[in-house]
This record gives sequence, C-alpha cells and structure tokens, in this order.
Amino acid sequence: MSARPATRRYRLDVAYDGTAYAGWQIQPNGVTIQAALEEQLAELAGGDRPKVHGSGRTDQGVHARRQVAHVDLCGGMPPAALARALNALLPADIRIVNAAYAHPAFHARRDAVAKEYRYCIWNGPVVPPFVRLYRTHVRPPLDVAAMREAAALLCGRHDFAAFTANPNRKVESTVRSLTALDIRKRGREVTIVARGEGFLYKMVRSLAGWLIRVGEGAAPAAQTTEILASRRRTARVPTAPPEGLFLWKVEY
Amino acid sequence: MSARPATRRYRLDVAYDGTAYAGWQIQPNGVTIQAALEEQLAELAGGDRPKVHGSGRTDQGVHARRQVAHVDLCGGMPPAALARALNALLPADIRIVNAAYAHPAFHARRDAVAKEYRYCIWNGPVVPPFVRLYRTHVRPPLDVAAMREAAALLCGRHDFAAFTANPNRKVESTVRSLTALDIRKRGREVTIVARGEGFLYKMVRSLAGWLIRVGEGAAPAAQTTEILASRRRTARVPTAPPEGLFLWKVEY
Repeated sequence: MSARPATRRYRLDVAYDGTAYAGWQIQPNGVTIQAALEEQLAELAGGDRPKVHGSGRTDQGVHARRQVAHVDLCGGMPPAALARALNALLPADIRIVNAAYAHPAFHARRDAVAKEYRYCIWNGPVVPPFVRLYRTHVRPPLDVAAMREAAALLCGRHDFAAFTANPNRKVESTVRSLTALDIRKRGREVTIVARGEGFLYKMVRSLAGWLIRVGEGAAPAAQTTEILASRRRTARVPTAPPEGLFLWKVEY
Repeated sequence: MSARPATRRYRLDVAYDGTAYAGWQIQPNGVTIQAALEEQLAELAGGDRPKVHGSGRTDQGVHARRQVAHVDLCGGMPPAALARALNALLPADIRIVNAAYAHPAFHARRDAVAKEYRYCIWNGPVVPPFVRLYRTHVRPPLDVAAMREAAALLCGRHDFAAFTANPNRKVESTVRSLTALDIRKRGREVTIVARGEGFLYKMVRSLAGWLIRVGEGAAPAAQTTEILASRRRTARVPTAPPEGLFLWKVEY
C-alpha cells in the first residue's frame, strides 16, 4: 500500500469567450472549457487527470467574465506560477484571471451564495465588428421603461417554471430568488443584470427573451404576472441567443 | 454606340475587424476588405464589378473603426438601402456604418486632409479574452511619462525615414507632419493616438514599436532625437504587431 500523495486545493477564477466551445461541462462531442482546463492541468501536474469543479455550467456559446472553479493538485505549485503556466498553455480565449490556495473544504458549486449574469444587447442598426461575438443584436429601439416594469414583476422569490427550458431532468423545485433584475442603457448598449442565489436551466436567457419581447412592444409588461403564475413554459417566452450572455461573477 | 448608363458616386464609411483579412487592398492571394466589398457591390449592382477606392491601405490584420471609401454605381439605389443590403450580404466582421451620396468629384484618398490612428495596448499580466484580437499585449508596466517624453520629440514636421518600413517603392519624400501623438492610460489600457495629414508605410506601427521600447525602459526617451535625425531605419525601431492598430477616422 502506498501513501496517497499530498494534494492542495486551488481556486481558479476563469474568463472565457464561449464562442468556440460546447459550453463549460465536458461533453462526449465538442470541445468544452472544463475539458481544456483538465487537459492542461494534467499536462502540468502529471499523473491522473485532475477533475475541475465549476460553480455551475454555462451553455454552448455563453461567455464568462469570471467563472470560479476548484481543483485538487499534488506537487504544490504556487498559485501564481500555476496561473502563469496555465495561461501559457491555454488558448487565448480562456484565461486564468486569478489562482489561489483554497480551504480543503471549499467547493466552487456548493459554497456559492450568489451569482450575477449579464445579458448584453446591441440595440441599433449596425453592430460594431469588435463586439459582434459578445452582443445580441436587437434592431428596433427597445422600450426600456416597459422592460423595467416587467423586470420589477419578476424580481423576488417566485416559481420560475415558466422561465426555464425543459432540462430533461427533474429539479426538486423551480422556486428561485431573483434579488436584482436591472436594465441598464448606455448609448446603443442595453444590459440586463440578473442576480440571485441560483438560477434554473436557461433561466437568464428566458428572462432576457421575455424582456426583449416586452421592449420590442410585442407583449405588454403587465402580462409578466400571468406568465409567472401559469408556471408553464410556452412559446410566449423565447430563449434569447447565447452570445449576449456572460456569467459575470460568483460570490462566496 | 450605346449611351453610358448614369452613375452616382457614394461615400461608404466602413468598420472592420482585420483579423481574418490580408489587409484592405486587393491581393493576388488572400481575402481583402476591398475585394469583399467589390464582390458584394457587383452582386447588388449587377454588370461590371465596381471599383472601391479607400482613403488608404491598411495592412494584414489591422482594424478600422471608420475607413472611408468611394464607389460609382448605376441604378440609383438610395444610400440607406445600399448600406442595409451590403450589411445583409457582408460577413459580420465588415460593417457599413454609413453610406451617403458624394459629390461626383469626391475622392476618398486625394481629398483626405487628416487621419487618426490608434494603437491599443493591454498593459498587464492577462489579456481579457474579449479584447484579445484588438490589443497588443505588453506585460511589464509601461513608463507612460517616458513614452510621452519620446512622443513630444516625434510630434511636428520631420523626416520620418527612420520610422517607416522599406516599402520596395520610391516615395517622393519621407517628410510628414505629425500633428498629435498622445499617450492615454486608463487602467490596463495604454493607447497611442496618432494624427497627421498622411502617414508613411508602417509608420504608426514603427512609432508604436519605438514608444513601447521606451516605455519598457529598453531605450531612453532622449534617444528619439538621434534616431529621427539618422533618417535610417534600423533594428532599434521594431514594428509593433498589427492587432493593436486601428484606423480610427479620416477627415475631409
């Protein structure tokens, strides 16, 4: 019997451009962020491929300004050296923005107390080429006041069953607390800022899809209450495309 | 003998992400912005492929926030409809930001009275994935005061032979007026703003290459005068990479 080698737990803060990826989580087909990280960590740490645990999944094409993950590594590489080495190996669309030692009990998913997502819209006739991969294009001028009215009705603790996609898996409860849902406008940029303890599958893109419909005048803001109460997902709530969505921050 | 069909001259203001292109000007090998525009205009206008005249070339990998071009078209399509149609046909990394009728004598290159270029540097350990295609990465902290000192020595009317690449073509004169050369710093962003009536081949990237060397402490700012006076291009002046460079605006 050999002694188990000593490992240390690290927290990794990761930014990525999701354009080229099949999402965060490892998939049988398609390149994922988690797989890219694990491959390079195996390269660095030697031995078994370490498992990287993220704060949660992001879908295909969704970006992260600051995803948080933990991983156990042996070898005792200092965090700053680990970040430098990973950044040298990873493609430029995935960056370690910070690495630190974590408590051995730290868990990136279970210990997260709040998350912030931002859904970024370019609201004008022409999207500048330099942000084309990071904005959802909405051509007609959005009625931001109507969007804010609808957002106010969504904020708080509700059953959000009407604002999640069918994940083909049973969730214990579809009740969630949305602590903030702000609409910010600055020139052509309209940004939906969503904060909460946790989110359902495709919840932010469903909220964004609905708010965009309201902003376009395709549905009245007041209808939000009825949709929420129906607890049924229908075609009235579209899922907004992934390119506008960023996992902005995770709080512990 | 048939009558020549009536044409109108249009001014096109064009933004592009130069990452995927072999520059502005049509090349025997490689896709260029000019070629992409001419192909789509031929598609729209029918008949002969129209010639698009830009305010000047941009090199492989260089971006434009607002390049200006003119083109003669028959058919009399209103400018707004032309812009919409072109944007529907062009890839998202080339956008017509404005189209307008121009005077029949308007010439995008000959009538330009001033140009502004910006050279954008990310000065920190990690480049965010979302700007990686639009910034030159400089890791060590730049001495912006030294860069400003060197820039002040470059500003004005000088023979810039030491700050141009050998273009394999004779230029009448290598004297140019640099009316502004500002260094702006905001957080990790260091931007070199260069304005002048006209620029030599690879002049802005040569100025940027030198200013970065000075900012890194690899050369003293005061040496700028000597290099300028030498009128000889040497390895002391590197050509900074294309991804940080934007043609920012053209004035008429």
